[in-house]
Amino acid sequence: MNYDLLFYSVPAASIIALVFAFIFFRQMKKEDEGTPRMREIAQYVREGAMAYLKQQYKVVVVVFVILAVFFAILAYVFHIQNPWVPFAFLTGGFFSGLAGFVGMKTATYASGRTANAARKSLNKGLKVAFRSGAVMGLTVVGLGLLDISLWCVLLNFFVDEATLAQKLVTITTTMLTFGMGASTQALFARVGGGIYTKAADVGADIVGKVESDLPEDDPRNPATIADNVGDNVGDVAGMGADLYESYCGSILSTMALGASAFYAVSPEMQFKAILAPMLIAAVGVVLSVLSIFTIRTKEGAGMSQLLKSMSFGTNLAAILSGVATFGILALVFGTETNMWWQLSCSVISGLVAGVVIGKATEYYTSHSYKPTQKLAESSQTGPATVIISGVGLGMLSTAIPVIAIVFAIVLSYLFAIGFDVENMMTAANLAQGLYGVAIAAVGMLSTLGITLATDAYGPIADNAGGNAQMSELEPEVRERTDVLDALGNTTAATGKGFAIGSAALTALALLASYIEEIKIAIGRTAGALINGVDAASASILDVMAEYNVSLMNPTVLAGVFIGAMMAFLFCGLTMNAVGRAAGKMVVEVRRQFHEIKGILTGEGTPDYKRCVEISTKAAQKEMLVPSLIAIIVPIITGMVLGVAGVLGLLIGGLGAGFVLAVFMANSGGAWDNAKKYVEEGHFGGKNSECHHATVVGDTVGDPFKDTSGPSLNILIKLMSMVSIVMAGLSVAIEIL
Amino acid sequence: MNYDLLFYSVPAASIIALVFAFIFFRQMKKEDEGTPRMREIAQYVREGAMAYLKQQYKVVVVVFVILAVFFAILAYVFHIQNPWVPFAFLTGGFFSGLAGFVGMKTATYASGRTANAARKSLNKGLKVAFRSGAVMGLTVVGLGLLDISLWCVLLNFFVDEATLAQKLVTITTTMLTFGMGASTQALFARVGGGIYTKAADVGADIVGKVESDLPEDDPRNPATIADNVGDNVGDVAGMGADLYESYCGSILSTMALGASAFYAVSPEMQFKAILAPMLIAAVGVVLSVLSIFTIRTKEGAGMSQLLKSMSFGTNLAAILSGVATFGILALVFGTETNMWWQLSCSVISGLVAGVVIGKATEYYTSHSYKPTQKLAESSQTGPATVIISGVGLGMLSTAIPVIAIVFAIVLSYLFAIGFDVENMMTAANLAQGLYGVAIAAVGMLSTLGITLATDAYGPIADNAGGNAQMSELEPEVRERTDVLDALGNTTAATGKGFAIGSAALTALALLASYIEEIKIAIGRTAGALINGVDAASASILDVMAEYNVSLMNPTVLAGVFIGAMMAFLFCGLTMNAVGRAAGKMVVEVRRQFHEIKGILTGEGTPDYKRCVEISTKAAQKEMLVPSLIAIIVPIITGMVLGVAGVLGLLIGGLGAGFVLAVFMANSGGAWDNAKKYVEEGHFGGKNSECHHATVVGDTVGDPFKDTSGPSLNILIKLMSMVSIVMAGLSVAIEIL
Repeated sequence: MNYDLLFYSVPAASIIALVFAFIFFRQMKKEDEGTPRMREIAQYVREGAMAYLKQQYKVVVVVFVILAVFFAILAYVFHIQNPWVPFAFLTGGFFSGLAGFVGMKTATYASGRTANAARKSLNKGLKVAFRSGAVMGLTVVGLGLLDISLWCVLLNFFVDEATLAQKLVTITTTMLTFGMGASTQALFARVGGGIYTKAADVGADIVGKVESDLPEDDPRNPATIADNVGDNVGDVAGMGADLYESYCGSILSTMALGASAFYAVSPEMQFKAILAPMLIAAVGVVLSVLSIFTIRTKEGAGMSQLLKSMSFGTNLAAILSGVATFGILALVFGTETNMWWQLSCSVISGLVAGVVIGKATEYYTSHSYKPTQKLAESSQTGPATVIISGVGLGMLSTAIPVIAIVFAIVLSYLFAIGFDVENMMTAANLAQGLYGVAIAAVGMLSTLGITLATDAYGPIADNAGGNAQMSELEPEVRERTDVLDALGNTTAATGKGFAIGSAALTALALLASYIEEIKIAIGRTAGALINGVDAASASILDVMAEYNVSLMNPTVLAGVFIGAMMAFLFCGLTMNAVGRAAGKMVVEVRRQFHEIKGILTGEGTPDYKRCVEISTKAAQKEMLVPSLIAIIVPIITGMVLGVAGVLGLLIGGLGAGFVLAVFMANSGGAWDNAKKYVEEGHFGGKNSECHHATVVGDTVGDPFKDTSGPSLNILIKLMSMVSIVMAGLSVAIEIL
Repeated sequence: MNYDLLFYSVPAASIIALVFAFIFFRQMKKEDEGTPRMREIAQYVREGAMAYLKQQYKVVVVVFVILAVFFAILAYVFHIQNPWVPFAFLTGGFFSGLAGFVGMKTATYASGRTANAARKSLNKGLKVAFRSGAVMGLTVVGLGLLDISLWCVLLNFFVDEATLAQKLVTITTTMLTFGMGASTQALFARVGGGIYTKAADVGADIVGKVESDLPEDDPRNPATIADNVGDNVGDVAGMGADLYESYCGSILSTMALGASAFYAVSPEMQFKAILAPMLIAAVGVVLSVLSIFTIRTKEGAGMSQLLKSMSFGTNLAAILSGVATFGILALVFGTETNMWWQLSCSVISGLVAGVVIGKATEYYTSHSYKPTQKLAESSQTGPATVIISGVGLGMLSTAIPVIAIVFAIVLSYLFAIGFDVENMMTAANLAQGLYGVAIAAVGMLSTLGITLATDAYGPIADNAGGNAQMSELEPEVRERTDVLDALGNTTAATGKGFAIGSAALTALALLASYIEEIKIAIGRTAGALINGVDAASASILDVMAEYNVSLMNPTVLAGVFIGAMMAFLFCGLTMNAVGRAAGKMVVEVRRQFHEIKGILTGEGTPDYKRCVEISTKAAQKEMLVPSLIAIIVPIITGMVLGVAGVLGLLIGGLGAGFVLAVFMANSGGAWDNAKKYVEEGHFGGKNSECHHATVVGDTVGDPFKDTSGPSLNILIKLMSMVSIVMAGLSVAIEIL
């Protein structure tokens, strides 16, 4: 078989993705931006968003430079680290940031144009918004695959090891540090953007909606521009960097596990195992592009037809990708052994779990179903019961996703080892089973090109609504953009299910990669033994035995506690950051209402800039501590509690973090939709007591679902990535 | 050495505790109950509380009978369980319930008398309330030690094994099932009582305080009697059953670990290790009684002197107990080896962690410190920021307790093995180290007699305030009971620190006991081998190897996810239960305000009974599902995922559950005190907008801190207890 040809189909797919992204971008740019007022508003938002992103990148660059220098010292002075790490780390960060940047640039151009298209019809609005979302989706996967291919070529050229088998292990584990760069960038983007957007949103809601009965995005509200800027920097740029990290993380961890799982078998088998995830992703890109073109409806189509069309597109891509996986793996692994269909079944397990999580999310957070309707009903007894019921709902909603993930983990593992339950924990089966878990995550994200499009188009429609409102367009325009926004929320649920589920599986794969990396770090000492075995041939089980990694080891248990705590501590820091920043925003908006004459009648002009400044400063200042803690705690844990402690930390963080993330996302989503349900006229409708109670819920839910919750998925993986990159230090310095 | 004499000092200490409890009870009963109106109110509350408890016991008895029959079938029909289990289970449940019952009986007699005493002076009020709290404290420890001693004697007489060493293992593991009975009862009491009290409290607050501006405990509020009944069934009876479970659980798990850790050494050493925790507890009882007598102040003493006096008493008991531990362990283990001081240092590690957790709790939840003051300040921007900041505060507050517990685990383990870090995971050191962790928990709870008194006296003072308000006594009486209540909150922090910390350590010890129990279950098959070793001589590590209990086993990882989810699911169910029940209460109170003429002017009489009925029915109905889930999930996990899955479940539940419990307790506590801070006149004082915002926070915090949070500590241990008791079934039926 011509493996070169297979490999080069990966950069080819990435080019296809980037070309279509560029085409869609050009198409969008050609649309009319509307009235002068609309252009002006769009310009405000665009400038604010770009100004903020520049500020954020300034801070992030400093952090990246410091870390890169630190890695360089470890590598070149102390020789306890791979020499490629500083460069891989920097490129990962750069491309992750670039994915977010392109997505945001597109979104800020698209929202005004979407509003203008929505003046003509719902369908025109959909087309502009969705194609712009596709720009982001395709950019993320295109850049991801491009970077991965480039590093493969580069390292293949430069890395030199005694054996080919060892070389493949070194290449793939080196590339994981590229993932750490992406994760670090993503965490800053999610946390910074999340604080920015929610400070503005919460502040605008409290004074605007609750105290002054202004509608959403009313131009009289001084925080409204900041709110719209926030949607772009948080929901678009943050999400782009986040999913770039998830996408690359899943592929990279699978490649690394593939190289090590088949180390003892043959370099050819290793090569196949490395190639498989890349090919699944490459085919997914092509399927995504094709499916994007299926999303088109006739003029005059209603909401339900739009929904059908979008669901059809994403489902088509997912189903085709599942089917294609069988073909790809048969091609790569051949059909002589059972490997091709076993691993394909692992991928299917992951896909099914993703669908189940998505459906469960929809059930618990959409106001078409009972839970959110009951939540809305609880507003009849005031804001306190709305909060209590919302917290209860979110906590309950964790059950189905966890059960789905548990099935996915166990089944993808067992499929990969051909249900050899008796010997499920032999060294060979363990490595192969974990490879199955990892590749399931790749399957879930393979159609990210289209699922991210359905996710990213939501904030674009939301911003289009803001533009319509602020430009005082006809009310039906706002109504149409609201329909688009609501549609986006529904279709995005599946994408989110895949994102959350794949994060859990990838994090598991990274646990195994961490152990592999420890092995490599020990192996740097010539002639080193692990559990009495030569370092290079040692298995995961040998490393665990060497370091007493046992469930009853007190350092493991200590690590589990610290890991669980990290998830809460991180959320606490980000929640408090939003609380503080929103408080400042409220004070400022109140001041403006009080001091600027005629502001509420529309005669005075609010000082939008001050509000933008408050959000910018708060986000800048507050994003540092939580992000740095995520990097520092795993390093300290490694140095004090050793390898066993780090594994405990990662497992505790993964378990508690996953559940906490689902809880926060779903509570927040349900509060949001309960409010919308009341606004649709239930329990008294807009401006009733019940509405005010649900607005309190929605406001509390904002940082739950858009700041703390989504950051947790990155936190879980970043802690693993940091541990992997710092494995050398942890082996060199270990107190317990 | 005369070990018999040492052993009989344990029942002797229990008799001392019970005698003093009886004396204090008699003293309290002799106090005057006050005006006819006061007697009437007290009678209402007493009757309501007793009526509810009877109802609850009816449900619990059914559950206990079903479970006991199930255990009997497993033991006598399938022979896969210890034949003593059904009886031990029933007695554990009975005594746990009895401890709660006695405490509640005392509290309902004491609160009216405390109010009456407070009419004379603050000191008189303190004396009655505190001595009544001491009745509960001493009853819990007295009954606990009595039951443990009785079962020791009984099993020593009846159990027959091939060797003495084996006999001691069988006796101590059998006694653990007594702990499962206590835990089951405690969970029902905490959940049922917690739902009852918070449904009434939340309902009363929402309509009374927020909507009608009535003060707390106003007789015009129809939910006020239910609220006061709730304080007794939730905070007193629930807490009594809870701490009985903790107290016995810590001692029993240490005894079981002692018997197995020194199985290979000698029966004498086993005997010493079994005796040690009982003796530490027995001496703690005597020290508690002595310290209770030091709590007395001169007439006319102020708040700060009262606080000093109470802190002096509890600190004295803790310090003396720490010192005494060195003496007791020197006496038991002799001073030829280092064991005596090593284990004593383990105990000290636990005590220090308990103090640190207590101080951290105080810092984060008392309005004398910045966090709660800042929380109160956030009320200036409305209820939404109060909730956001409170959630943030609670999440942040988990860091210090987790770090304290991590230190306690690692240090108590390392002390116990003499810091033999190189060999920390040999089979012998593992068993001895875990014994050190377990005995640290015993040390933390040894002075429960007095710390529980400072905890239980709070609700008595609270109820006394209710009585004063409803009987329309002079305002200074209410002020005095409020001082007593506030005092109780502060002194209770340390006790709560010990309770939470010891729960974590005990749960860890139970993990080891679970593995031991699996060993015994396998050993029931004659000639069975574990990891190639004869079952009886197999170590914890052998059992783990046999069952592939490895951190990278997918069933372990699946278990960790399920465990973390259990903590959230359980809280979600209880939160929703409170939300639903409170909603019903609000509707009823609103109805009465609307339909009963003159109710708000005091001319009409509210229908208190209807509100009591609503709380009773809701608690009855809603407590079943969460409690049964806690029992059923570990059983199913054991049958499907096997031993490895169960260990994952228990560790995931422990890590996430501990952190979640601290978060919920501290958020709730801080919201409560932020409201009090505003009521003291900050940010506008009572009935200001800020006050209303903090009342929303306080209402949300009610189920956080009094229903879901405290139940988690029991859940963690109950899941372990269930797994231990069902080990036989899990060995017999195992799918993976």
